[in-house]
Amino acid sequence: MDFSARFAPFFTIGRVCEYFVQFSQPQERKSQRKASMAEHNRSATGLSIGEYLIRRLQDYGLKDIFGIPGDYILSFYSMLEKSPINMVGCTREDCAGFAADAYARVHGMGAVCVTYCVGGLSICNSIAGAYAEKSPVVVLTGSPGLRERINNPLLHHMVREYSTQKDVFEKLCVAGAELVDPVTAFREIDRVLDAAARFKRPVYIELPRDMVNVVPHISHTFQEPTVTSDPHALEEAASEAARLMATAERPMIIAGVELHRFQLQDELAQLAEATGIPVSATMLGKSVIRETHPLYVGLYEGAMGREEVTKFVEDSDLILVLGAFMTDINLGIFTANLDPAKCIYATSEQLRVRHHHYHGVTLPDFMRALAAQKPHPPKRAIPPSLAMKQQPVGEVTDEQLTVRRMVPMINELLDDDVIVVADIGDSLFSATELVTRGRSEFLSPAYYTSMGFAVPATLGVQTAKPNARVISIIGDGAFQMTGMELSTIVRHSYDPVIIVLDNHGYGTERWLHAGEWEYNEIHPWKYSKLPDVLGGGTGYEVRTEKEFYTALQSAWNDRDGMSVIHVHLSDQDASETLNRLASRMGRNI
Amino acid sequence: MDFSARFAPFFTIGRVCEYFVQFSQPQERKSQRKASMAEHNRSATGLSIGEYLIRRLQDYGLKDIFGIPGDYILSFYSMLEKSPINMVGCTREDCAGFAADAYARVHGMGAVCVTYCVGGLSICNSIAGAYAEKSPVVVLTGSPGLRERINNPLLHHMVREYSTQKDVFEKLCVAGAELVDPVTAFREIDRVLDAAARFKRPVYIELPRDMVNVVPHISHTFQEPTVTSDPHALEEAASEAARLMATAERPMIIAGVELHRFQLQDELAQLAEATGIPVSATMLGKSVIRETHPLYVGLYEGAMGREEVTKFVEDSDLILVLGAFMTDINLGIFTANLDPAKCIYATSEQLRVRHHHYHGVTLPDFMRALAAQKPHPPKRAIPPSLAMKQQPVGEVTDEQLTVRRMVPMINELLDDDVIVVADIGDSLFSATELVTRGRSEFLSPAYYTSMGFAVPATLGVQTAKPNARVISIIGDGAFQMTGMELSTIVRHSYDPVIIVLDNHGYGTERWLHAGEWEYNEIHPWKYSKLPDVLGGGTGYEVRTEKEFYTALQSAWNDRDGMSVIHVHLSDQDASETLNRLASRMGRNI
Repeated sequence: MDFSARFAPFFTIGRVCEYFVQFSQPQERKSQRKASMAEHNRSATGLSIGEYLIRRLQDYGLKDIFGIPGDYILSFYSMLEKSPINMVGCTREDCAGFAADAYARVHGMGAVCVTYCVGGLSICNSIAGAYAEKSPVVVLTGSPGLRERINNPLLHHMVREYSTQKDVFEKLCVAGAELVDPVTAFREIDRVLDAAARFKRPVYIELPRDMVNVVPHISHTFQEPTVTSDPHALEEAASEAARLMATAERPMIIAGVELHRFQLQDELAQLAEATGIPVSATMLGKSVIRETHPLYVGLYEGAMGREEVTKFVEDSDLILVLGAFMTDINLGIFTANLDPAKCIYATSEQLRVRHHHYHGVTLPDFMRALAAQKPHPPKRAIPPSLAMKQQPVGEVTDEQLTVRRMVPMINELLDDDVIVVADIGDSLFSATELVTRGRSEFLSPAYYTSMGFAVPATLGVQTAKPNARVISIIGDGAFQMTGMELSTIVRHSYDPVIIVLDNHGYGTERWLHAGEWEYNEIHPWKYSKLPDVLGGGTGYEVRTEKEFYTALQSAWNDRDGMSVIHVHLSDQDASETLNRLASRMGRNI
Repeated sequence: MDFSARFAPFFTIGRVCEYFVQFSQPQERKSQRKASMAEHNRSATGLSIGEYLIRRLQDYGLKDIFGIPGDYILSFYSMLEKSPINMVGCTREDCAGFAADAYARVHGMGAVCVTYCVGGLSICNSIAGAYAEKSPVVVLTGSPGLRERINNPLLHHMVREYSTQKDVFEKLCVAGAELVDPVTAFREIDRVLDAAARFKRPVYIELPRDMVNVVPHISHTFQEPTVTSDPHALEEAASEAARLMATAERPMIIAGVELHRFQLQDELAQLAEATGIPVSATMLGKSVIRETHPLYVGLYEGAMGREEVTKFVEDSDLILVLGAFMTDINLGIFTANLDPAKCIYATSEQLRVRHHHYHGVTLPDFMRALAAQKPHPPKRAIPPSLAMKQQPVGEVTDEQLTVRRMVPMINELLDDDVIVVADIGDSLFSATELVTRGRSEFLSPAYYTSMGFAVPATLGVQTAKPNARVISIIGDGAFQMTGMELSTIVRHSYDPVIIVLDNHGYGTERWLHAGEWEYNEIHPWKYSKLPDVLGGGTGYEVRTEKEFYTALQSAWNDRDGMSVIHVHLSDQDASETLNRLASRMGRNI
């Protein structure tokens, strides 16, 4: 079986398509989500298309949907408002998209509901990011009623064809359906939602507004498709991998973000502990194993990362790469030096052992089968220098704050349940130097690297986990893109700590492209005054280490509302990681 | 010749495509733009692809480009910064797109420059709006270098394929090119820019970052393509139309926005004055003729408009529809009642006389040929009640302000050079009741109706006309989407008057969909405090007629910076037009 997303059928209006899957019976389901699905799994008879869609979204555990109403989606929006699902109105659609993406990352699936074209085409970038980084977001959108389209009038919000929005999302989603036929609508909904859950990519569902209340005269019972591995390929792959591991002298695991997406964090820890193999993580995969784990050696980022980690990883004679995207930034801009002949590369899309491939083996099955083989490689000593360093804060001075000094101050606050959200640029690079622990999570668009992710993502995280302690680090340029989504954070009385790193512009670009360029300068805002505009939260404006340290403690202890800390940095300030990245990337630009 | 945009070839990489046009010689050029083009029209030998592109953008009169830098476009961005073109950095890409659209509407062509995917996919909605409403915006974007793509690595910002962004814009633009081949790059640039100028639609140019500095070893001289009408069809069409006009008893002209796009406002006024035929305009075409013109009878909007106008227009026995989009909102949600048998329908895309069509006749040629025929229909009396009413402000009270009372107060300020920008919803509907005069212009996304157009559009207008007096009317929901682009307005010390109509949510939707829906409520902001955040401008917060009137005068007389007037309205407040629209549209939702 080939899991490559690009081969998934996108639109199969009016015909049945169930991928290449087998059907299991309800009694085989185990998880809570599946239990709730079984409970709902009664006949769909009598349900309208809109009602069936809502029921199925609930089956997948969706409790909240982000969006903006608009006339072509109002009927469905109203149906959602009356349903048990909580509607989270955002200030703008792309923020709703980012929020849904972050919600999906911590909750398992997310959804965004927007109107036709003016809404849908505003979330292209957020959904593209969810595609690139494998976050299962369901795009729910309206469109002109089929009866309105007779004689092809120019309806408002229309771009070129009635299908323009759908045509665009075909490029950005792994599956999609336009629910134009009552006979196939339920099956289409099943197919598309299954694709989101299976491929961990966004999907698209378009409801012409006169189809929302249509009740199909068909008999339909949902049957959950499951994917099973080819047992022979699985057995052979696990045996071969175990044999290679057992005979390796310096084995290594590189863990990627898919282990998070497919909820395989426990399997990773068990495999590492059972075999005693050291674990590194990619930047996107940060927090997939707690960074205080004795087998954890830090992030592997090629030449961008710490030299001792890079050396330790690349000195391995067998590397088990699990669920990692082999991307440029993720792996240090082509500076990663991983010899395929030494690699077992297992993701949701492929399983490659050295230079040969196994088809039809799922990542979870492979990890479990491998653990069952109980491979026992010789124990590899981990030099103490590799452990993630938690530098003590030390003396807090009146010097101007730097991101390097900020890191230990934030590190002090992290405990097992803190969620760190980092925007891109030096927000990301400095945040990677934090040490996550326990079940704490680290969210960042570290591959797609779209500026402006962090504030709406913070909304998404807080919606999924209202009581979580969230700390969000974001540059001034990124904040100006989407930071006003703080509005919705204030509206819901969430209490994240938002740190705005103000280096007067697009700081990372200054490092990537030599010269004094005016375009990197941005207009200064008084971020600490935003609570006055938004009617909630507390603002801080700081320059020195002492001011930051004091503001951070105060914000951390304030659970009454959000805090925004405006940090003035030198425009030459840079983390170690950015320094290393800049020296590698500058060549290509 | 068929001008339908959908038949324009989109990508013709590596081959020559010049539509179906003839080439004229430089000496035939007349306008200033053409003169500047002729001046530049020397051999391109020795120019790099980036340099040639910049020269050609200048040929089309571009003086300013909106955008956000990012690594895949940095080389070209730097080249632009060093060129005579002024780069206007925005807070976010979609705002840059709206600004470029508005700039194009008042300046003739606009451009936006953004990085690959995270930038480009953020402007889908703005560009879709420019497509829908025929605004020639050039999308300039970078992409990974061709040399970086070898072995197909996962480069940051990539979604699915290297071509994903291009594939998306193929759905949203009338032409596009990916400049991957030095041999064809110059011709491709010529072809694509010509399409923008010709079709008044957005176009797409993608520069892989390692192509920017490539100097093609070819000989290339730009020759401006021109479109000429089929002389026989033109003659026959003009004669027939003139004959119909001469024999009509109650002739009428409906003028649309294309007359603005193709700069045919003078031709319209001349045709009306020479024939004495009354003129109405569509909502999107508002200001294409000054609304104090004695032949002007008001906006024709079907049942949405003033009853006496609708009656007068529909009572005509011959209607010359010029450059109007036959859209739903533009024409009152299918309530327009124009019998094709009585219509001559001429746009840039088609010429239809009653039930037959002429091909290969351009709109400007048709209008000029028709005027040359000097048709003299009998003079049609215009009832005095049709003239656009400028109600006196009268007594200004301490009552809560309503939009109906706001209109005459703003009307007082309008003179020949004011530019009015209206966002959608009741901002648009109330603004249509203003009386534009002289060369004043009225900008609004009245067909595509994308919320959040007005503030970035105000930036675009002020960039094109830094000394113009601009008044911008925008609802609270729309303001929350893009209103922070005020940042760039403050940065450049522009002085528009921004009126935020705060009815606590998506007010128009309350009228379109019955019931009390929580989703229509939005979080309240203190808009008048934004100057504190942005470090410039003046804020006002008003509730009563008197407070508004005073604030408006004060803002109008303040040329030191922007003013933002936060107007508290009742959530039941509505203009007459919205009342009429709601009663028509409610049925369809």
